[in-house]
Amino acid sequence: ELPLALIAGPCQLESRDHAFEVATELKDITSRLGIGLVFKTSFDKANRTSANAARGIGLEAALPIFAEIREKLGLPVLTDVHDAAQCAPVAEAVDVLQIPAFLCRQTDLLVAAAETGRAVNVKKGQFLAPWDMKNVVSKITGAGNDKVLVTERGASFGYNTLVSDMRALPVLRETGMPVIFDATHSVQQPGGQGTSSGGQREFVPVLARAAVAVGVAGVFIETHPDPDHAPSDGPNMIPLREMEALLANLIAFDRLAKAT
Amino acid sequence: ELPLALIAGPCQLESRDHAFEVATELKDITSRLGIGLVFKTSFDKANRTSANAARGIGLEAALPIFAEIREKLGLPVLTDVHDAAQCAPVAEAVDVLQIPAFLCRQTDLLVAAAETGRAVNVKKGQFLAPWDMKNVVSKITGAGNDKVLVTERGASFGYNTLVSDMRALPVLRETGMPVIFDATHSVQQPGGQGTSSGGQREFVPVLARAAVAVGVAGVFIETHPDPDHAPSDGPNMIPLREMEALLANLIAFDRLAKAT
Amino acid sequence: ELPLALIAGPCQLESRDHAFEVATELKDITSRLGIGLVFKTSFDKANRTSANAARGIGLEAALPIFAEIREKLGLPVLTDVHDAAQCAPVAEAVDVLQIPAFLCRQTDLLVAAAETGRAVNVKKGQFLAPWDMKNVVSKITGAGNDKVLVTERGASFGYNTLVSDMRALPVLRETGMPVIFDATHSVQQPGGQGTSSGGQREFVPVLARAAVAVGVAGVFIETHPDPDHAPSDGPNMIPLREMEALLANLIAFDRLAKAT
Amino acid sequence: ELPLALIAGPCQLESRDHAFEVATELKDITSRLGIGLVFKTSFDKANRTSANAARGIGLEAALPIFAEIREKLGLPVLTDVHDAAQCAPVAEAVDVLQIPAFLCRQTDLLVAAAETGRAVNVKKGQFLAPWDMKNVVSKITGAGNDKVLVTERGASFGYNTLVSDMRALPVLRETGMPVIFDATHSVQQPGGQGTSSGGQREFVPVLARAAVAVGVAGVFIETHPDPDHAPSDGPNMIPLREMEALLANLIAFDRLAKAT
Repeated sequence: ELPLALIAGPCQLESRDHAFEVATELKDITSRLGIGLVFKTSFDKANRTSANAARGIGLEAALPIFAEIREKLGLPVLTDVHDAAQCAPVAEAVDVLQIPAFLCRQTDLLVAAAETGRAVNVKKGQFLAPWDMKNVVSKITGAGNDKVLVTERGASFGYNTLVSDMRALPVLRETGMPVIFDATHSVQQPGGQGTSSGGQREFVPVLARAAVAVGVAGVFIETHPDPDHAPSDGPNMIPLREMEALLANLIAFDRLAKAT
Repeated sequence: ELPLALIAGPCQLESRDHAFEVATELKDITSRLGIGLVFKTSFDKANRTSANAARGIGLEAALPIFAEIREKLGLPVLTDVHDAAQCAPVAEAVDVLQIPAFLCRQTDLLVAAAETGRAVNVKKGQFLAPWDMKNVVSKITGAGNDKVLVTERGASFGYNTLVSDMRALPVLRETGMPVIFDATHSVQQPGGQGTSSGGQREFVPVLARAAVAVGVAGVFIETHPDPDHAPSDGPNMIPLREMEALLANLIAFDRLAKAT
Repeated sequence: ELPLALIAGPCQLESRDHAFEVATELKDITSRLGIGLVFKTSFDKANRTSANAARGIGLEAALPIFAEIREKLGLPVLTDVHDAAQCAPVAEAVDVLQIPAFLCRQTDLLVAAAETGRAVNVKKGQFLAPWDMKNVVSKITGAGNDKVLVTERGASFGYNTLVSDMRALPVLRETGMPVIFDATHSVQQPGGQGTSSGGQREFVPVLARAAVAVGVAGVFIETHPDPDHAPSDGPNMIPLREMEALLANLIAFDRLAKAT
Repeated sequence: ELPLALIAGPCQLESRDHAFEVATELKDITSRLGIGLVFKTSFDKANRTSANAARGIGLEAALPIFAEIREKLGLPVLTDVHDAAQCAPVAEAVDVLQIPAFLCRQTDLLVAAAETGRAVNVKKGQFLAPWDMKNVVSKITGAGNDKVLVTERGASFGYNTLVSDMRALPVLRETGMPVIFDATHSVQQPGGQGTSSGGQREFVPVLARAAVAVGVAGVFIETHPDPDHAPSDGPNMIPLREMEALLANLIAFDRLAKAT
């Protein structure tokens, strides 16, 4: 089994400079810690709670930045796609296409992502049982692409609340694909602030530790130099300056989990 | 307050003849009962549990059939759209564009549907609190379209199960838009049959009666001459021959609810 | 099928005079409306959220008041019991023993209540599936008592929230016992005010109407002349002055439900 | 912070010899591993799903066996109590009184347990938010007893299913009391086998590892030489022969969790 990998970055691609700042810092941290890094950021927040919320810089502006990060920093890049037509152009600039949780059953999107040949990371819908992800994975592998990652990011639990069922991790592993635990969105409180989602940043290390102890291929953690002023997911992003200590701790748990 | 309206039809548009058979029968029933009817059917089941499940005849084959139903039977037609590019062509052939529950927060799809000028029926996501639908409605009205319907179709309740919270109906009414109760998908058991969703048809009349007593503008009920052999949602569709008695009963409850 | 019956009264037995005031008023209302009434009040709130909350006047002080209400007003009386030893003495003063929801699986309490020969009203636990109430009913009938009522009062739905699943009513009816819908506790927000439970009084008529339309033997509604100053369940009790209009409406729905 | 402690034993006290067999084996295992052990077994299963299920040997027969285990094996003993009157006699024979989850808000039971002066382990109700346990703890400390343990054992998640919310562990820690994770009942499927509860034994190590990584004072694990033939909780008990390896693994995670 491979050691823990990290998918991380700011929720939104705010600007070229902002992305480089965070990516460079994350590269330094993961180099010191000796773990793999995939840089994640979104060019479009296509399903914000409110239409008035900031959506990001958009596909066209983002693709050259993704390409530059890959080239200058040597980092693989992951971003999310929202409709089938985006998959091919995005695939030219990134290494991993991510399917958002709400869209995890949209067959055309899954097939279009698969057909790019890039790795596809599918988030499990908040409305989906973990054993039903095998059907989702089949939609991608059936399109001829075996490079699939499956990500747990919480299940609906009453209104405006998610719960992380740690039993889901071994169930997802039965798909045969690497399992990622998204500690950032698992502590989201969907719609919990009226016109935006709330979050409970203090539980990111709690749930990440639990998931790594159970055993995962990687963790997904959004981070920002100043989360309280981030345009989205601020309440559940981890300050960038806290990432190294958190990751060092998770790596220790990962080693133990994979040794036993 | 207007009397109860019905949105009904077979889950999938299986063929021209099949659609006409069901639409004609529903038109006869609702004429006898004196209630309004919107004919609903889907040209594409874009988020089936499994990639191997039948998806329908597709957009191009469907549009002329929709147009023919409207012209020959004089019925308004509703169908669901799955991405922004579909909205304009579909709007030329139908009266109501429906946003599927999983997609109820996809801003681009909501805006594209709104911009057609057609009425838009948005299903509340299984993962969404009823009070959060005001943000969804704002995305449509903010794009200049006030002809919005909001539909309750169940909330996630553990795995493979939905629950219908009747408190959601008055909460949804606070959006100012007509509220529809989807009795068919509220009794769905998502993913509950391994590679397809299960359902509990016997609870359709139970939940429909409860919702109508609470007070709704309309009910959404999928129906089929032979549900057990339907390509999708068979376990939760009502046999066509049972529709008239069910509707007669719901109309009695609707009159009482709106008189008091 | 018998017409709708009412179980009602103030949550707590605050004093003899308070109980008589409410019971007399409820007797007048139900006489005018022509429906049956069981007067409900509790001598002890044995499971308050906080130890500092008012619990009530206690068993010994309550029994003579129960007896006096039965004798002077000719009303059957219902109260809840919390341990097996209370059943026999309470049974001498009341007509119906009620098993609280948290205690619905405590075999000794169920058997002791059954053995008094009085009717037993069991509330379904917030943690219990409706189909599991058949086992609860069997504990009572197995002890030789067939006078059982089963009451729906909401199911846990995330934290501090309940949801009323209307499908539960026909499932409970399969026990063969009369089914009661408790509209008061179904809108409780357990523990929702830090050291006491909150509630959503505005949804009592909503859920009661839904349940009566589905079909129940009776409704359970707590009421108080001044709910906002009641010692317990104030947020979800209906003001006494609103009861007659609410009941008149529910009776109309009940007649329709039982005629069809 | 103290190292991980274990509360373990067979669900039911089946016989003196059976209890000694399991207790002796657990004592040997925990001695080898160098961790503390509290021996747990129940003299009465007072809330079985069905009245026909085996309840155990009863209070009178159990007390001398508890006393003998304490004396001969030198082990502290824990057992659960179901009504206030049991507390004093049970307290003479055991070290820890346990309050079952369904009963965690029964004030009289909590106070009676507190007044024995013995340690009290309260299980969090399946219907209770973790932050509401502070009120439960206050009922015990308010009665003058500060020796309280709080146990997480799953929250209701739809019907016949529980989910373990790992965020509950740090929330419970805010009560100031040691937090125990009950890995056995967290994988229970309440009522899931019609007339008895089901369980998912394979998830005991998964959830226990997650909880220990988050940080707990102890784990609660029921075990049996032959779980498939045990009179209760068989589907979720761990075979006794697997306990040592499981515990050794949990101890490694506990050391790491408490060092970081």
